[in-house]
Amino acid sequence: MADPNSTKNIGLRGITVADTKISKVEGDKGNLYYRGYHIHDLARNSTFEETAYLLIYGRLPGAEELRHFTSQMILNRDLPDMMVHNLQERPATAGTMDVVQSAASLLADYDADPRDESKEANYDRAINLIAKLPTMVAYWERIRSQQPIVRPRTDLSHAANFLYMLHGQAPDPGVARELDVALVLHADHTFNASTFAAREVASTRAHMYAAVSAACGALSGELHGGANTRVMEMLHQIGSIENVDEYVKTTLESGNKVFGMGHAVYKTYDPRMFVLQPMSERLGKITGDTSWYDMSVAVMESTVKHFKRLKNADIYPNVDFFSASAYFYMGIPPHLFTPVFAFSRVAGWCAHVIEERFAEAQPKPQLYRPRAEYIGNYCGEEGCVYVPMNKRPGEPETPSS
Amino acid sequence: MADPNSTKNIGLRGITVADTKISKVEGDKGNLYYRGYHIHDLARNSTFEETAYLLIYGRLPGAEELRHFTSQMILNRDLPDMMVHNLQERPATAGTMDVVQSAASLLADYDADPRDESKEANYDRAINLIAKLPTMVAYWERIRSQQPIVRPRTDLSHAANFLYMLHGQAPDPGVARELDVALVLHADHTFNASTFAAREVASTRAHMYAAVSAACGALSGELHGGANTRVMEMLHQIGSIENVDEYVKTTLESGNKVFGMGHAVYKTYDPRMFVLQPMSERLGKITGDTSWYDMSVAVMESTVKHFKRLKNADIYPNVDFFSASAYFYMGIPPHLFTPVFAFSRVAGWCAHVIEERFAEAQPKPQLYRPRAEYIGNYCGEEGCVYVPMNKRPGEPETPSS
Repeated sequence: MADPNSTKNIGLRGITVADTKISKVEGDKGNLYYRGYHIHDLARNSTFEETAYLLIYGRLPGAEELRHFTSQMILNRDLPDMMVHNLQERPATAGTMDVVQSAASLLADYDADPRDESKEANYDRAINLIAKLPTMVAYWERIRSQQPIVRPRTDLSHAANFLYMLHGQAPDPGVARELDVALVLHADHTFNASTFAAREVASTRAHMYAAVSAACGALSGELHGGANTRVMEMLHQIGSIENVDEYVKTTLESGNKVFGMGHAVYKTYDPRMFVLQPMSERLGKITGDTSWYDMSVAVMESTVKHFKRLKNADIYPNVDFFSASAYFYMGIPPHLFTPVFAFSRVAGWCAHVIEERFAEAQPKPQLYRPRAEYIGNYCGEEGCVYVPMNKRPGEPETPSS
Repeated sequence: MADPNSTKNIGLRGITVADTKISKVEGDKGNLYYRGYHIHDLARNSTFEETAYLLIYGRLPGAEELRHFTSQMILNRDLPDMMVHNLQERPATAGTMDVVQSAASLLADYDADPRDESKEANYDRAINLIAKLPTMVAYWERIRSQQPIVRPRTDLSHAANFLYMLHGQAPDPGVARELDVALVLHADHTFNASTFAAREVASTRAHMYAAVSAACGALSGELHGGANTRVMEMLHQIGSIENVDEYVKTTLESGNKVFGMGHAVYKTYDPRMFVLQPMSERLGKITGDTSWYDMSVAVMESTVKHFKRLKNADIYPNVDFFSASAYFYMGIPPHLFTPVFAFSRVAGWCAHVIEERFAEAQPKPQLYRPRAEYIGNYCGEEGCVYVPMNKRPGEPETPSS
């Protein structure tokens, strides 16, 4: 058996695997920077389009650069007819993250030359993927609920256009800006599990579609992108603010988690929460129903209180906690929360794939190929010896024919 | 800038990330074991079906267990009609690994309940994926070359049935057994890049289809599964045995690699090569054309000689070197070599996903979330400050409206 004190690096926690210039998390101080810019500064001043440019190209664009980038995104919004047709043929029960994972891979079919490994080709693929992921999500949601798809508009922002394609009517500009900011907040977070999966696949020199598709697979897991959906399910389960304290108390005392509370990296408030909490509050007022926001605040306060009592430790809401009610107020159904996360984070995935392939850092990234400790069976010094079927325990000793 | 002597673990080389009971590589001695059985013992005595059972369930089956497992594989061979239809609608230029990556993900649509996380459901998914990957490859090859698809037979082995679906006629039983052995040899290799990608995705609790699809993406890269195709391209480029020494000499002297020679883990002969070399030789004799085998031997000998002269070091052929000519002799076109690798290695991927999710080892596996060292821009103590567009360098200072 393995020695529990061995040097195994379970989950790779604390293991530094590469240099990056894309983003930085200060877990102790509760700071997040994209390319050196604090997330609060970007949330206040930037847009998802500009933030995607910043992540991918490494600097803020000039006016003409941003105009060109945005117009390329707009031109790439719609899906090839065959991909729409493929969506129409999928069973209505298909999971949206499964749809996005396979659709990201299918996009490779329409690349002029998926083997073109130039930096320019990779920038074009990034624009294509960032532009199309929201369309995949909106089209699939309309198709599976037997509504006609709504083609993208060219006069709306990335965020507004998604809400338009989803709901069939142009959103309130204020609500669209709230989604825009939420997309800025979710666009990168250094080497999280999905980004690491994208880099891992890219490290073999597979193309960007293969890497982004793999990242969608990683994000779909409930320990990663699935968490914001679980927060909303929890709020629905609690039902009303009077039930909050009893629910939280019972959940924590029975050793279970309150979804959206606590983070592997932040040891204080997640900086994104300071943007998302007032966003949820504003959206509650706009929609005239503050109950989800109020219940979220009550769950947060109750969790902090009971966690302190039970563990004598502090716990803080993470990015998923207030994004759940915020998205819900925007009319986004909970099963689309993880796909919305995906079409924001895809900006980071593409930036990381480009960094993995074109990093100037020394030593350069290499194919990820870790070790594992073999703790299995050996049978004896020379290993197990293959026993023919008729000599195995319980098998009749038939003469071989 | 980063310190080149920092503790970064580029490519995770030498970093132990988990316990495993599935396979063990002894790089110094040139040994490979699946579940304690030496690869030579399995190649001599076992079949791909039995080896897949061994990898997934952890022990050799009894006769009834193997009969049941094999019949489940046979029953799962064909694809749902909609997936065949999807293949027919893809552009003929689509890459086969792209097709397999997206098709593995599409399979989730047809799972009775992809969120069923029981061990039994995972065993069923493994059988489904192992059974269907060869069908995806054969159907796609027939469709893209405008030939009618050939439905699987129920009376042929896994290997023989693939050659039947590919060529439209049942293969020579001796040739089918050679492919069967090649599939045994490629079925697992501990934490290689694609297997690690599968485990990484599974570590978020994403389902097996998401994980295997991601692994296909990793395998598609030319630094990983793409190598055997490159060996065959190299042999075609060399053209005839007289050109070998000059080709190898020029290639090595100009700092390039001879494909299929050298391995990241083995510091001696790759044990699989001892099976694949005589396999290629036998197949050359069966097909009456030994030229590809002879040329391979000449390339190997010339590479050893010139490598010794230039680097004063030994170099050995890896698993890709003789598998290239062996597959070619079986009538498998070179662009399918990596897909054939995929439908063998899928047995290992599925076993690793199950181990990642149900490991009894302590500490248990956790979501993979490594660190990266931020070496990017900061601008100043507090990070960069967002500059409005009209204040950026080169932009006209327009008054804001």
